[in-house]
Amino acid sequence: MEGAALTRRSLLVGIGAVGGAGAMYAAMGALGLAPSGQDKDFAAPRPGDFSLRGKAAAKVVIIGAGVAGLTAAYELGKAGYDCTLLEARDRAGGRNLTLRGGDRLAELNGPAQDVKFGEGVYFNAGPGRIAPWMVTLDYCRELGIPIETFINNNGQALVHTNGQTIRARAARADMYGYVAELLAKATNVGALDKQIGKDDQERLLEFLRRFGDLGPKLGYEGSDRRGFIKYPALDGGTPIPAPGTLHAVLAAGTGRSITNDFGYEQSTPMLQPVGGMDAIVTKLKEAVGEDRIRTGVKVNKITNLADGVEVTWDGGSLKADYCIATLPPHLLAKIPHNLGDPVTAALETPIPVASGKIGLEYGRRWWELEDRIYGGVTETDLDITHIWYPSAGFHAERGVLVGYYNTDKNAELYGALTPEDRRRRALTQGRKIHGDKYGKDLLSSVSISWDRQEHIQGGWVRWPAIDSSFTLLQRPSGRVYFAGDWLTYLIAWQAGAMESARGAVTQLHQRVLQSP
Amino acid sequence: MEGAALTRRSLLVGIGAVGGAGAMYAAMGALGLAPSGQDKDFAAPRPGDFSLRGKAAAKVVIIGAGVAGLTAAYELGKAGYDCTLLEARDRAGGRNLTLRGGDRLAELNGPAQDVKFGEGVYFNAGPGRIAPWMVTLDYCRELGIPIETFINNNGQALVHTNGQTIRARAARADMYGYVAELLAKATNVGALDKQIGKDDQERLLEFLRRFGDLGPKLGYEGSDRRGFIKYPALDGGTPIPAPGTLHAVLAAGTGRSITNDFGYEQSTPMLQPVGGMDAIVTKLKEAVGEDRIRTGVKVNKITNLADGVEVTWDGGSLKADYCIATLPPHLLAKIPHNLGDPVTAALETPIPVASGKIGLEYGRRWWELEDRIYGGVTETDLDITHIWYPSAGFHAERGVLVGYYNTDKNAELYGALTPEDRRRRALTQGRKIHGDKYGKDLLSSVSISWDRQEHIQGGWVRWPAIDSSFTLLQRPSGRVYFAGDWLTYLIAWQAGAMESARGAVTQLHQRVLQSP
Repeated sequence: MEGAALTRRSLLVGIGAVGGAGAMYAAMGALGLAPSGQDKDFAAPRPGDFSLRGKAAAKVVIIGAGVAGLTAAYELGKAGYDCTLLEARDRAGGRNLTLRGGDRLAELNGPAQDVKFGEGVYFNAGPGRIAPWMVTLDYCRELGIPIETFINNNGQALVHTNGQTIRARAARADMYGYVAELLAKATNVGALDKQIGKDDQERLLEFLRRFGDLGPKLGYEGSDRRGFIKYPALDGGTPIPAPGTLHAVLAAGTGRSITNDFGYEQSTPMLQPVGGMDAIVTKLKEAVGEDRIRTGVKVNKITNLADGVEVTWDGGSLKADYCIATLPPHLLAKIPHNLGDPVTAALETPIPVASGKIGLEYGRRWWELEDRIYGGVTETDLDITHIWYPSAGFHAERGVLVGYYNTDKNAELYGALTPEDRRRRALTQGRKIHGDKYGKDLLSSVSISWDRQEHIQGGWVRWPAIDSSFTLLQRPSGRVYFAGDWLTYLIAWQAGAMESARGAVTQLHQRVLQSP
Repeated sequence: MEGAALTRRSLLVGIGAVGGAGAMYAAMGALGLAPSGQDKDFAAPRPGDFSLRGKAAAKVVIIGAGVAGLTAAYELGKAGYDCTLLEARDRAGGRNLTLRGGDRLAELNGPAQDVKFGEGVYFNAGPGRIAPWMVTLDYCRELGIPIETFINNNGQALVHTNGQTIRARAARADMYGYVAELLAKATNVGALDKQIGKDDQERLLEFLRRFGDLGPKLGYEGSDRRGFIKYPALDGGTPIPAPGTLHAVLAAGTGRSITNDFGYEQSTPMLQPVGGMDAIVTKLKEAVGEDRIRTGVKVNKITNLADGVEVTWDGGSLKADYCIATLPPHLLAKIPHNLGDPVTAALETPIPVASGKIGLEYGRRWWELEDRIYGGVTETDLDITHIWYPSAGFHAERGVLVGYYNTDKNAELYGALTPEDRRRRALTQGRKIHGDKYGKDLLSSVSISWDRQEHIQGGWVRWPAIDSSFTLLQRPSGRVYFAGDWLTYLIAWQAGAMESARGAVTQLHQRVLQSP
């Protein structure tokens, strides 16, 4: 990331030549213009770090070859550290898992699924989208991984709440329209006179007219923003009929759905690697060196020694100068160690969260052909929670919908079913939204229950509170460091795993450089 | 489009098996679920149409090989019509113009520009985006043109109004926050008691809390939706400081910018052909047959005959059974004809609108590297109006920004400048938003003033009113038909040109089939 770090610095010089960085950040921040990356504070270990100091790079054993482990090995490798990754599963990547035809997905206490997708079709069973500010994009750039848009917000997609289905654009137009009308009328009857002056009331009304597409009398009478039965062309088209009453619109309860991308995590647009999220794993593995990754190695003991760390597994052991443990905390807590009870207690604190997804492969992209939905998400209050439409491969013969992406109780419910029953239930729910075509042209499917994935056993974790357990594990215990999205404020994002790995690498490298 | 028409029909059967199409549309329309395409009513001429009836296909001369002319020839060609396209310019496509390195762009009353872009870099000088419901996508599908997302809405992009620059996400969070606060407080002091009941007030408040990210006392105190100086990672990050007061936020006047994609035309997401919009021209030309397109032919007379049409140009003439005239109306009005004064008057009615764009090629995609802007549009109140960031080629070495895309007086202002001065002015304006880096790493540029393009002379037209002139020209005058976006409610969109061509083709084909 050296290149990126330099880039950031040159930005600071460019914009902030006058005054210190603090003053500049304040000025930029007030307008929302501060650079949005994560890596300002990260300086990757460099090849020269050791040669310049006459020191030798250390040997590091990394437990877990998920995104955190791979990132740590990659960054340490830049300065020549001798890293070994021990991975209990049969492949690296952890939750960054893209399934394609020919893959076989095993499951704890359940049957394995053979993925039968056609050529060129893939399903991101784990992470599927990247916000523009996330460090994940820096790794894509540095590793030469092509990226493309992930459509996270689509007015043509649907909202299904309280048994009704409506296009997102119509749901949005209606809520905005009525909100604008109510506030405009309240303004006009003087309800805001004590709070804001007349000039500001005029400015507010101008905004509300535009925001809600209000009529001349400041009423919301529907809007062509809702869409058309027949769009304008040779004539003015046929708009869909007037919306329901304010009461009906409020009762529909679309609010959560239409504000879903307002946060900084679920932004518009988002991005994805071309061809599948596991391009990140593939490139990290290449950069780290496949020979450094040992799969099928189930660690059963971690021992801090005076001069190093020993990691043991059934049939072998390895001694290194340092260890970075990147397993999910609830699994790490079960591995015998001599790091002390507070570490065990801290590792036992975060609670695993169930999460599941199903990929439905269709032989016909009816959502594009018939519903004109090109990518995006349909939000629902059903147990499937979301339907994702693919953001790439438009107009191809086949395509994969994410038929559910749910968490907690909904994920547990689906996880407890057989793969066949998961699909059946997902189709039943999807039919409520898309009608009978949802059950037609289906070629194959594959579903994942992350809490039933061996050596992962959860979609992610939830901390009851960010307390001393969290901060304890952000520091090393003896020669053992911890890393993973679970040790960041970006839980459930690959960016969290990467940021955490950088944090551990930074601490470890400074220690090695400063050691006598 | 036969396949697509069948697709639509099968949709109707699928969803609306009970009850007639009218009832079904009403039900679907009320929820915004009506199919969104344009082609429900279009049945393309078919090869069998003539053989089945023992008739011969007619000979058609099409004036203008822009998108309307090419579409008409393509559709007529499906039934074996003998079409000839006469194009005054040296290449087909009209305003669908993608510029690449090696191209030369001539201009009326101005110097020609040699395009010096590097390999793989392109600039859509005309149309650049397609809404998901537009018929343009059906042609992309039918012609096998790969499409990808055009990012029309990006929270990371900027808004520049009244001399201030702010990220779109922050501008949006602030306006929504204050609107929500004002309405929530008005609700709580009883200002809405006469209009809506308590239950609805509760539902409204629930929405407003979410919509505005309001605090516990229903106040807007800023929101992490605005963005961060340092995004959450190992710690909770550093949010950008609290927003300005309601007065300051209203005075900033960001309303127009943050509602820019609310309409059905400027939707989120939009789409574009991979590699340049002119893929549509290329594929239409191939399908029509290059030998049917005669470039450099400047028609100077159109004569309706009793049994056909004669079209004359300097050095030649052509007789056909029918003619479709697709030139811009203000240019068509100047060509001598015997169609009568009402036709001339009607053609003279729409007013050409100036429009211009500049492509700025940079050797470094600083908007991605430093500002984390991946595609999208920065809205401004400057004379450049918009800055577009490229929606593809992320992380490539080079990239083309659209440095202005403006109309009317702003376009005339830039059009009157030399290409060098246009670039200089665009850079001066862009620096107000992006700082000095806007002037660095610039490799080349090319600008277009559509009102200065020979045989086009306008970005599009504006009808003072959609009146009898408009409807007159939607019908043939003798054996001469008219087509172009200017004869639709989709002016300035390629979809308009295509829809109009379909309309003319439908009328012409019915006439031929019904003729004795």
